[in-house]
Amino acid sequence: MVKSKVWILKKMFEGNAKASDFELEEEDVSDNLKDGEFLIEALHWSVDPYMRSVDTGLLVPRNCMPGEQLSKVIASKNSSHPVGNVVRAFVGWRSHTLITNVQLQGIGQMPEMGDLPLSLALGILGMTGMTAYFGLLEICQPKESETVLVNGAAGATGYIVGQIAKIKGCKVVGCAGTDAKCKWLKELGFDEVFNYKKVDLSEALKAAAPDGFDCFFDNIGGEFTATALKHMKQYGRVALCGHISTYSDQEPPKGEYPFYNMLSKQLKIQAFNVMQFMSRWAEGEKVMAEWIKEGKIKYRESITKGFQNMPSAFIGLFDGANTGKAIVSA
Amino acid sequence: MVKSKVWILKKMFEGNAKASDFELEEEDVSDNLKDGEFLIEALHWSVDPYMRSVDTGLLVPRNCMPGEQLSKVIASKNSSHPVGNVVRAFVGWRSHTLITNVQLQGIGQMPEMGDLPLSLALGILGMTGMTAYFGLLEICQPKESETVLVNGAAGATGYIVGQIAKIKGCKVVGCAGTDAKCKWLKELGFDEVFNYKKVDLSEALKAAAPDGFDCFFDNIGGEFTATALKHMKQYGRVALCGHISTYSDQEPPKGEYPFYNMLSKQLKIQAFNVMQFMSRWAEGEKVMAEWIKEGKIKYRESITKGFQNMPSAFIGLFDGANTGKAIVSA
Repeated sequence: MVKSKVWILKKMFEGNAKASDFELEEEDVSDNLKDGEFLIEALHWSVDPYMRSVDTGLLVPRNCMPGEQLSKVIASKNSSHPVGNVVRAFVGWRSHTLITNVQLQGIGQMPEMGDLPLSLALGILGMTGMTAYFGLLEICQPKESETVLVNGAAGATGYIVGQIAKIKGCKVVGCAGTDAKCKWLKELGFDEVFNYKKVDLSEALKAAAPDGFDCFFDNIGGEFTATALKHMKQYGRVALCGHISTYSDQEPPKGEYPFYNMLSKQLKIQAFNVMQFMSRWAEGEKVMAEWIKEGKIKYRESITKGFQNMPSAFIGLFDGANTGKAIVSA
Repeated sequence: MVKSKVWILKKMFEGNAKASDFELEEEDVSDNLKDGEFLIEALHWSVDPYMRSVDTGLLVPRNCMPGEQLSKVIASKNSSHPVGNVVRAFVGWRSHTLITNVQLQGIGQMPEMGDLPLSLALGILGMTGMTAYFGLLEICQPKESETVLVNGAAGATGYIVGQIAKIKGCKVVGCAGTDAKCKWLKELGFDEVFNYKKVDLSEALKAAAPDGFDCFFDNIGGEFTATALKHMKQYGRVALCGHISTYSDQEPPKGEYPFYNMLSKQLKIQAFNVMQFMSRWAEGEKVMAEWIKEGKIKYRESITKGFQNMPSAFIGLFDGANTGKAIVSA
């Protein structure tokens, strides 16, 4: 037997997530492997806002918190996954996991990493990178010299969206919640940046792009979305990626329906989930790795040390504690 | 000189349009034509909900009401438009109009009509037909055996949307505001029909399509839209065509933001205007005329006699007075 540490959700979130919502348990994991099985030990865990998504039915009290980890194979009766191999595993907030045939579908190939840090496979060379890549290029379809808006721009997905838009020859407007984040975004090449906590949003959007936006990559949702829609150009494209501003709300936000602006400007709003592009991840990860090697895209991680700190790293996402991708390392 | 009758908007609409908002004036139109000019006399006028669209900036008090008419050339110094020719002219609610070079861009070619009634060029073989054709096929992109929802289904665009969806092998759910309209929709081949005034909308949608809708062609807007979004399937596509339910509102409707359902199901909502497909109208009109000749699509018009009745025909649109396309004939 191997002892696995497991973070479970003690009770459903009410309002903001708090430390007392989680409980660290120990679980016995068999190391008496059957043919095809292997045992993994986590090196890095991803923490992401979507893990909060109670409304998707993903979470049930007394369940292990969901999520992706980067793990090393420590015992194996599966020739495709020999001991020492590293895999991406969607098995939740756990230290050790027995991968049976049933769970094999949660095991993903690693991208070609070269000399890059392994943990990038959970971020820019993984889920958040592919979210930025396919969300911007496939849903927004930005064209050269168009103007792109991205909110939550210093977050795990936003900072990549802005850099890809620059590669594509766009003018990029981003916003974040601290002056330090804004300064960093300017260093990354964002054309216009503002701290949304210090401005009137509508005025700031107007000042940043007097003629409006062709594309809007939305990580925030709620009132931000409704306001930004008023600043779109005709035939504008909006990619709905997340709505972190509302995850902790007890009631759905209310306000003016957005349909007026949509009709008068023939806007498209499309919500997406990066999983719908799963079959093309290898293609996207290859391009992203090249951009990193060529210096066209910079990456950044906010790393928290220690599995015991999973809840605080997760709670920090909603306070804007992270810049770039939030990772917990063993 | 020729005397033209002209319906002008006396003052901006407040709430529902009423007869006293309009005034019938007479205007002198020169028949002393310069080279390239021609004079037209209207045979049929289109009345459409979009004419209400104050928010688009289309309407200004003391302006002629906007809109399309079918007209005969009665004098001409333009060899492309000889006397006796019939044209579609976007010149507003007027009986006689001098077409100068400046106004030529408002003059459209007629579709191939064969033996069909001329007035169809303002409806199924014109703007509302092309709205249905391109809105459904290009924006919703329905696939065989998918389920399509259309509201305002007995209106000028809705009844065509439903019939095209049937041709494409879809299950079609429609709703309208009278039992007579619902009965007619069943005759047209709609699979499920309900009178939205007599049901709980959410329950009726659930009953009509327990597994949800793949496509939703929205003519109504407002709360209907927000409710219907909850009944979409994953990857559902919504074409926002109009929002007649809200045109007379003084304030934009408020309610739950629709973004929750969009994100959890990766929905696409795209607002469109048929003018964006202008370059392809001839293609769409040809297909539509063939479907009519083959008996695959039936057409229907609600014809009001007399130019003096333009306001009442227009006001009737918002009371559900018309079934099919509303036309005023000289």
